Amino acid sequence: MGEDPDDDERFMREALAEGRKGLGATSPNPPVGALVVLGGRIVGRGWHARAGEAHAERRAIADAVRQVGADAIRGATLYVTLEPCSTHGRTPPCTDAILESGFARVVVSAQDPNPAHAGAGFGLLREAGIEVRSGVLEPEGRELIRFFARHVLSGMPWVLAKTAATLDGRTTLGPGMSPWISNEAAREDVQAWRRQCDAILVGGETLRRDNPALTLRGRWAEGRVQPWRVVLSQSGDLPRTYRLFQDEHSARTLVHEGISLRESLARLGSLGVAAVMLESGGRLLAHALEQGLVDEVILYLAPILGGGATRLLPVDGIVARLESPEIVTIGDNVRIRGRIAPGAPTA
Amino acid sequence: MGEDPDDDERFMREALAEGRKGLGATSPNPPVGALVVLGGRIVGRGWHARAGEAHAERRAIADAVRQVGADAIRGATLYVTLEPCSTHGRTPPCTDAILESGFARVVVSAQDPNPAHAGAGFGLLREAGIEVRSGVLEPEGRELIRFFARHVLSGMPWVLAKTAATLDGRTTLGPGMSPWISNEAAREDVQAWRRQCDAILVGGETLRRDNPALTLRGRWAEGRVQPWRVVLSQSGDLPRTYRLFQDEHSARTLVHEGISLRESLARLGSLGVAAVMLESGGRLLAHALEQGLVDEVILYLAPILGGGATRLLPVDGIVARLESPEIVTIGDNVRIRGRIAPGAPTA
Repeated sequence: MGEDPDDDERFMREALAEGRKGLGATSPNPPVGALVVLGGRIVGRGWHARAGEAHAERRAIADAVRQVGADAIRGATLYVTLEPCSTHGRTPPCTDAILESGFARVVVSAQDPNPAHAGAGFGLLREAGIEVRSGVLEPEGRELIRFFARHVLSGMPWVLAKTAATLDGRTTLGPGMSPWISNEAAREDVQAWRRQCDAILVGGETLRRDNPALTLRGRWAEGRVQPWRVVLSQSGDLPRTYRLFQDEHSARTLVHEGISLRESLARLGSLGVAAVMLESGGRLLAHALEQGLVDEVILYLAPILGGGATRLLPVDGIVARLESPEIVTIGDNVRIRGRIAPGAPTA
Repeated sequence: MGEDPDDDERFMREALAEGRKGLGATSPNPPVGALVVLGGRIVGRGWHARAGEAHAERRAIADAVRQVGADAIRGATLYVTLEPCSTHGRTPPCTDAILESGFARVVVSAQDPNPAHAGAGFGLLREAGIEVRSGVLEPEGRELIRFFARHVLSGMPWVLAKTAATLDGRTTLGPGMSPWISNEAAREDVQAWRRQCDAILVGGETLRRDNPALTLRGRWAEGRVQPWRVVLSQSGDLPRTYRLFQDEHSARTLVHEGISLRESLARLGSLGVAAVMLESGGRLLAHALEQGLVDEVILYLAPILGGGATRLLPVDGIVARLESPEIVTIGDNVRIRGRIAPGAPTA
C-alpha cells in the first residue's frame, strides 16, 4: 500500500527536481513537480510546463497509467511539491484526478500559499479517506514557489537583483579594460537564473552605457519564450538603435517611461510576471533597496581590487543584510546569494 | 632502509604541519618542520621555534634519539620542509647533524631560496652517499617560507593586507551601527593570521578613528611575543592616550613618523621583520597597492549591502588581481585570500 514514510524525503527530492524544470515558464502559475510511487518504485513523473497546460499531478498520473496501467496505481502514493488545487481554474481541479485514480496516500511539500485555498485540497482528500502528509522538505518546496507566492498574494513580482563586482564593489574596471568583471562560467551561471525569471529590468542608464541584449542564449533559450526586457526610463529618451529594439526578440521589449520602479513592478505583476531579475546599475539598485523592493540578491564577485568609478551601490547609508547567504565558488569568482532580511533596509 | 617514495608526500605533509607551528615566531629565520621516519613509522618530530634555538632537523633527531636511541636511526629517512643549512649561523650546520646520525635518505620540500646557498646542502649530503630527494610538495614548502624568502632576498618584509568589508566594499556600517562588519568567527580567524606576522601596521588615521589594540589575544598569545604594532603617521600627531601607548604591550609599539610606507617597511625589514600585516584604512591600502608593496590580501566579506561612506579602496583606477584566490566560508562571512598577481597594479 503506502510507501515507507522514511522514503518520503527521497521521493520528494525527486519531485522537487521535476518541479524545477518549469521554473520561469509557468507564470502566473507556480512550478510544481509530482511523482507516482508504487511499491517503492517511481512509475510516473510530471511537472507543470506552462499555464493552461496540465498540472504536474495530472501529468504524473498519465505517465503512470502509460507505464503500468490505471488499475495498478490504485493504492499508490502521489508525491507533489505543492498542495493540489481543489478549484476549477483553466484546468479541472487536481483533487478530482487524485480521487479518481484511487491513491491511498498523498505526500506534499508546501501548502497553497493563498490563505483562501490553503488546506482545502488536503481537506477534500482526507474526507475521501486518503492519507495525507504535508510539510515534507517544506523549505525547499516553499523556495520553489517563492515567485508565485509573492505574486499570488500581492500582485507584485519577486525581485532578484543580480550584479557583478570587484571585491571592493566596483562594477567596471575602467577605460581600456575588459567590460566583463566576472569570469565566463559566472556569466553562464547568470543565464540559469535569467531562465527562472519572467522579466529582466534595467534602467535607461544601463541601456545607454552597455547596450545589452538581456536574452537567454543557446541551450538556455530552448523551449522557452524569452523573458520580457523592461527598460525603466524617466526621460524615455532611448533611441531605437539599441539592440533591445532591433533584435529578433524586440517584441519582448517594454519601455516603462516616467513611472516609478514600484509602478513598473506593479504593471509587470498585472501582466502575470512573477519574477523579475533586476540587472540595473547602482543608482536604480540603491533606490530599489531603499524602497524595500528587492527580495533576493545574486552577487558575483571577481578576485579584483579596484577598477573604475562605477559602484555597486553609489549611495551611503543604506544597510541591507542577506539572510543565510548561499556562497558558491565559480572558478576564481564567488557567487553570493541570499534574501534581503526583513526590516527597513536603511540604517 | 629508506622509505617507500610513495609515502614521501604523506610524511612531508606531517613535516609541513610541524613547521607551521613556528609561523610568526622564527623571524628572521624561516619556519621549518622535520620528521625522522624508520620503517614507515615516525620516530621523531621537530620544528624550529625561535631564531638562536635548535633547527627543526636537530630537534627531530634529538626526539628520535630519545624515542629509539641513536643506533636505531642509522639508515632512517629524514623529512625536512626546507633544504638543510650547510653553513655556520647562530647554530652549527644541520648537514653535520644529518651526517653524524647516519641517515640513508633525506627528503626535502623547498630549496634554500637564497641563491648563494641553494643546493649546497644537497651537494654535501650526496657526496657523503646519502640519497636526496627534493621538491616533494614544493608549492606548500615554498608557501611556508614565503615571508622568509622575501626578507632574505630583498631585506623587505612580505606584506599581507587584511581588511573586512561589506559586499559593496564599505568598511563601516555608519553612525549608530555596530563597529564590526565581520562576524565573531571571522574576527577570531584574524588572530590566526596576525599570529603568523612579526608586525601589524596601521596609519595614523586608523589609530585616531578606531583606537585599536592590535594584539594577539587569549590562546593566540600563548608562547608568543606580541607582534610589533607600527603606526605610520605623516604628522606624528598621536596623543599618547591611545591604547597602543598605554597597554601592557606598549614596548611593542613603534611610531614611524614622516616617512613613506616603503621606508617604513625597509626599517622593519632591518629589524628582522619578515611579515607585516597591513591593517590600515583604505587610503594607505590604496597607496600600498599603487606602489606594488602588497604581496597578499586577506579579505573578509560580510553579507551586507551598503553602509557608511568609508571604503575599502577609496581611489579609482587601481586594478590589482588576486591569483588563484582561496575562498573559505566562515559562517555567513567569506574569506578571500590570494597573492597580488605580478605586473603593475594600476590600470
